[in-house]
Amino acid sequence: MTKKIGTGTYKFQTPVEVSAFSSIVGQKEKEGPLGKYFHKYSNDEYFKQDSFEKAESFMQKEVLNDVIQQEKISPQDIEFIFAGDLLNQCAGSNFSVRDTPVQFFGLYGACSTMAEGTILAAMTVDGGFANRAIALTSSHFCSAERQFRFPLEYGNQRTPTSQWTVTGSGCVMLSKENDANKPKIKDCCPGVVCDMGITDMNNMGAAMAPAAALTLKRYLDDTKTKPEDYDLIVTGDLGSQGKELLRILLKKDGITLGKEYDDCGTMIYDCEKQDVHAGGSGCGCSASVLTGYILPKMMQMRYKEVLFMTTGALMNPNTSLQGESIPGIAHLVHFSMN
Amino acid sequence: MTKKIGTGTYKFQTPVEVSAFSSIVGQKEKEGPLGKYFHKYSNDEYFKQDSFEKAESFMQKEVLNDVIQQEKISPQDIEFIFAGDLLNQCAGSNFSVRDTPVQFFGLYGACSTMAEGTILAAMTVDGGFANRAIALTSSHFCSAERQFRFPLEYGNQRTPTSQWTVTGSGCVMLSKENDANKPKIKDCCPGVVCDMGITDMNNMGAAMAPAAALTLKRYLDDTKTKPEDYDLIVTGDLGSQGKELLRILLKKDGITLGKEYDDCGTMIYDCEKQDVHAGGSGCGCSASVLTGYILPKMMQMRYKEVLFMTTGALMNPNTSLQGESIPGIAHLVHFSMN
Repeated sequence: MTKKIGTGTYKFQTPVEVSAFSSIVGQKEKEGPLGKYFHKYSNDEYFKQDSFEKAESFMQKEVLNDVIQQEKISPQDIEFIFAGDLLNQCAGSNFSVRDTPVQFFGLYGACSTMAEGTILAAMTVDGGFANRAIALTSSHFCSAERQFRFPLEYGNQRTPTSQWTVTGSGCVMLSKENDANKPKIKDCCPGVVCDMGITDMNNMGAAMAPAAALTLKRYLDDTKTKPEDYDLIVTGDLGSQGKELLRILLKKDGITLGKEYDDCGTMIYDCEKQDVHAGGSGCGCSASVLTGYILPKMMQMRYKEVLFMTTGALMNPNTSLQGESIPGIAHLVHFSMN
Repeated sequence: MTKKIGTGTYKFQTPVEVSAFSSIVGQKEKEGPLGKYFHKYSNDEYFKQDSFEKAESFMQKEVLNDVIQQEKISPQDIEFIFAGDLLNQCAGSNFSVRDTPVQFFGLYGACSTMAEGTILAAMTVDGGFANRAIALTSSHFCSAERQFRFPLEYGNQRTPTSQWTVTGSGCVMLSKENDANKPKIKDCCPGVVCDMGITDMNNMGAAMAPAAALTLKRYLDDTKTKPEDYDLIVTGDLGSQGKELLRILLKKDGITLGKEYDDCGTMIYDCEKQDVHAGGSGCGCSASVLTGYILPKMMQMRYKEVLFMTTGALMNPNTSLQGESIPGIAHLVHFSMN
């Protein structure tokens, strides 16, 4: 007997508490519709470090330390950190945690990392391994552009379906506590890799939407619930293109997403005014929207039942140059105030 | 109350069974001292694929499918695959699992990935989330060389402390079963990131040895055991340099490693005859030695108590170019036939 329901939704024996959380973003995100909600920001894209990569690690350190301070604990009181990012060999995370003596599990889930880490952290708490576990991730527009696309100095033209990597980071601390005012994780649905043959690296929404449709359909079937049972169903960063594709794909399966559905990539920017084309992307997109906006709104009882589903495009520049299509994945976490 | 002992060793409620395992290697590994033990090999470095990266994914698919076939199950009978590799964005793993409909958690732990994945898979089994979970990883000399160092065609000179990335892959399937003839995982000790300031990318043994010393010392203290209580203590791929450093570092802490200690990087090659300098490295090194040699020898009762500790160097080429030192990590798994 396991805690599994149906095809692969996992119900925690005791709901896992989100005890603390923190967010940090850059200037462009500060100027967006959610700007006032983030815990911290910097108008310096280097965050006073000497490279974009170091700036990314700095953001992670800021939110990690903030969460530790909020809880008035020391790193020794935390069992595990689950962290990952988009940099080659997940260097953003590896360097952010090296001064924090906590047992570390490095992840790579592309833009799905926030839910991936949250699921695994929650499993270690509910499985009896941890009193406290952390999920942490980040992305940075400048470190991502030069690694995945072109040097910024080149000033390349962006296609209409392209997304803008969010400069931001988010961190959650999960625990065995049971404070009625804090959001709880009731269940989760880890994703399956799904590749429908999309090859355009500038249309990652299309590459990820089928994975999101698959995970959401599995979750709703497993739990025998409907989209309208939730106050908010939010995808990681499908952007405006992927968001519409998700609606279309689910409609074919008889599932209609109503106005409870939104996407972190379209929430974080005013796509038109801020010239970001299809919206935001990057691990830091869903991580900062979750920790800066969604979780605080849950504590204010604006949202009581939230499905947070982050999506990842699992290619690298070489696989695309070698003609491969783009595998996608989507991990789902159910946060609840009830 | 958690399953934690001391500083961070986790004792499973019920020992987790290693139900099946498989290994695959390339020609050079086949010609090494452990050559006859591996399940499969190819004398074609492309494994009949059209790129080295695709060859790496192919190896993972081979061992994954072998394990599924050994157990006479279908992918639907497995709850989770934990996999990662050295390629940018862990592409080796992302592409290897896309035809296998199993919930997937992508990892990045550099050469520590085999123990990292095994620990997390075991936690999901013992935590009540999975009946069966898989840990999978790989590395390929040719894909690693061109990504981390130089194009092969350049024919660069290798330094004496450098290691040779193993072309190989390994896979274990863990389960709730309880067959007396199969190895069990009794406990584990996840690693903490440790950076002692080593900056030489060609001396990764030195960068990783302090992390290995820290994890092994913590584990022995937590469990109140001594090195001689184990038939085999094996590090992932410290190589000949790191192996000696580990002995020296532990001696300072009053721990003497005897002849029970070895390293997968020095076991897999005849370092002198095969001209691999300090030995083997890469995620596939410890993964193929574990699944090809150690676990089978345990089933023959040659080893009854084994500490398997994989080590990872968590830099990327950019962080080294930016003058950063190399953070290390070491994850430990205790396999037992008792």
